[in-house]
Amino acid sequence: MSTMALAVDKGGIELSPNLLSGVSLPAAVVHESPLTHNLAWMQRFAEAHGAYLAPHGKTTMTPALFHRQIAAGAWGITLATAPQCRAAFAHGIKRLLMANQLVGQANMAIVATLLEEGAEFFCVVDHPENVRQLGQFFASRGLTLSVLIEVGVEGGRCGCRHQAQIIALANAIADEPALALVGLEGYEGVVHGDDPESGIRRYAEYLVQVAVELERAGLFSVANPIVTASGSAWYDLIAEAFHSAPLQQGRFTPVLRPGCYVVHDHGLYHEAQAAVMARRPDLKQGLEPALEVFAQVQSLPEPGLAIIALGKRDIGHDQLPLALRRYRESGTQGQQLSVAGWEVTKIMDQHTFVRLPEEAQDVAVGDIVSFGASHPCLTFDKWRQLLLVDEQLTVRETMNTCF
Amino acid sequence: MSTMALAVDKGGIELSPNLLSGVSLPAAVVHESPLTHNLAWMQRFAEAHGAYLAPHGKTTMTPALFHRQIAAGAWGITLATAPQCRAAFAHGIKRLLMANQLVGQANMAIVATLLEEGAEFFCVVDHPENVRQLGQFFASRGLTLSVLIEVGVEGGRCGCRHQAQIIALANAIADEPALALVGLEGYEGVVHGDDPESGIRRYAEYLVQVAVELERAGLFSVANPIVTASGSAWYDLIAEAFHSAPLQQGRFTPVLRPGCYVVHDHGLYHEAQAAVMARRPDLKQGLEPALEVFAQVQSLPEPGLAIIALGKRDIGHDQLPLALRRYRESGTQGQQLSVAGWEVTKIMDQHTFVRLPEEAQDVAVGDIVSFGASHPCLTFDKWRQLLLVDEQLTVRETMNTCF
Repeated sequence: MSTMALAVDKGGIELSPNLLSGVSLPAAVVHESPLTHNLAWMQRFAEAHGAYLAPHGKTTMTPALFHRQIAAGAWGITLATAPQCRAAFAHGIKRLLMANQLVGQANMAIVATLLEEGAEFFCVVDHPENVRQLGQFFASRGLTLSVLIEVGVEGGRCGCRHQAQIIALANAIADEPALALVGLEGYEGVVHGDDPESGIRRYAEYLVQVAVELERAGLFSVANPIVTASGSAWYDLIAEAFHSAPLQQGRFTPVLRPGCYVVHDHGLYHEAQAAVMARRPDLKQGLEPALEVFAQVQSLPEPGLAIIALGKRDIGHDQLPLALRRYRESGTQGQQLSVAGWEVTKIMDQHTFVRLPEEAQDVAVGDIVSFGASHPCLTFDKWRQLLLVDEQLTVRETMNTCF
Repeated sequence: MSTMALAVDKGGIELSPNLLSGVSLPAAVVHESPLTHNLAWMQRFAEAHGAYLAPHGKTTMTPALFHRQIAAGAWGITLATAPQCRAAFAHGIKRLLMANQLVGQANMAIVATLLEEGAEFFCVVDHPENVRQLGQFFASRGLTLSVLIEVGVEGGRCGCRHQAQIIALANAIADEPALALVGLEGYEGVVHGDDPESGIRRYAEYLVQVAVELERAGLFSVANPIVTASGSAWYDLIAEAFHSAPLQQGRFTPVLRPGCYVVHDHGLYHEAQAAVMARRPDLKQGLEPALEVFAQVQSLPEPGLAIIALGKRDIGHDQLPLALRRYRESGTQGQQLSVAGWEVTKIMDQHTFVRLPEEAQDVAVGDIVSFGASHPCLTFDKWRQLLLVDEQLTVRETMNTCF
């Protein structure tokens, strides 16, 4: 897997096929240059809004990327499950924000071990029964678990729906000696409303307001409680709300948690980022897509139809993948060939169907095609390894995932 | 992961929660009893139709299951890609049928190494350019590659559309000293038609007819050419066509390739199998679902709504998963609780939404729920390990996947 390499000419990326010949395709590739750009861009964005960054690691579950995120200045890594936290900690990530409820004795045991081994760990709670379970479990282990209350919305996902529930839950936490309330957590990605933008602004302001009220009521166990929200689509609105006066007097620790930004995408988040840039004309040179899957033309069974050796097991398929570039594997010189008018019409477990335009007469079995997808999380989890490539498409690193 | 266990009582499967406490959920579970039944059932079915069985291994990519399939009498294992073949061979599978075109120099190199190491390997071809590429590559390695011509249909996936193409391709193969034409391959899962049943019967008969004609024309390199087809939905019609006189004079090697049968499912193939049983009232006690994912209630944020710690990364979601059974983790005695009326309404990367019926007052955070899915291939590939459990739900084996 270490012999993939390409050469760049002025006309764009150009592939040196002999150098790629060692790589079995399909293969998932991360381009280093946009990756580096995205890492710096989002870190700068968070800092410009007075916020810390705890990128959602569930997107990639790739320790080599976690390390780059931390090196770029991230405060910690967000994760979704206890085994994900264990994997990140095993790869040197010390501050873990689990943006989910911790349920199940086995998962609690995983977290207890992490605490005993020195991890700084936070998870969220939204139900008195879960508070009771956690209080009992961590007391039995002689440990203190730091929790954030999840603030939800009616019709949303997890999280307390009303302020009265939040206050009651804070008091229930105070009654558990093994628990410490250290902040509030929200996820705006499930906020609905005819006007989603103002809906999310309202939600973010509510989160700040509740944090201020809980702090005034003395319900937090720490001096600078965490207030955290933001997925990868609406992070700008959350950041603006966090940047407002009440959180900016040094009394809180505002944390943003976007995940997909690191490699961005060619679908959902491409559109979401266009909306961010439209809302925020002051931001320069937004995120850039860095993740592609390279595959080969397997069959040309009918005029106008190409079957690609690429399937649901290789690439995210919430939306159909996009053909980005094409190369002739067996050419004597690497050269980009056209994918103009190529339309992916269907994806099966191991096959992708492409409708070719009438003028696409030059397509050959074995041609190499790079594809972009929407929603990078569901491409990463298809792979045990991804290839990090530089601008010459030389493989710089084989990055393992730990799903 | 080795302490999961359950006890059975007369009322059904009963869970002993203390024994389950060592297993971090979600976890994918294969039930040994229906697995064993399915293994024997399909082997018997193939033999009763005078056919060999080469189960599609891409479904599970689980060597422990490949070994059980071979032990049950399978002729070989079918696979979808060169790396899958390499993985199966590395786990002791000697006869590999790759039911796809072999494209790419790197993938050809993988297969060349397999041949040098003693694998019996077959792949399919459907295009003269691929024949030329393969002929050149395997000649350069001093090896002979055994190929089957893929017989496709207009509007289908891969495969030659017309008999004239098949004959021309057979002659092109004969012109390549490094290639040996050893049979014909088809996949009926993409056959369309207003009357799909008769469409598939017609396709299967066509496959047999072409095989006979190629054999008469002396275009096969072997004495008993392989004729193979069948996915997991229409295998009965293929088997019946293969059972017809022309293939049953010892002149051919008929091979069936269903994959999903091994653990069956709770969706697509459940319905397909009901159709098989309706077409074939002589068959007794059909396939049984063996694959489930156990997960826990994470949040009960509103009346009538449960959020489960189970996501797109844990279970196939071509169709929404079904809640099958529920247990109280912290109960003093394992006991099945109701999931009557539970309706999965949505699945996200790490969360499943369940609408609860009004009478479901007893649901608790932490409750363990087993889920069934449609299309097992896309559940297996979410896991690096699955747990094989016996009727008491004791873990008998931790089975690694090699995706």
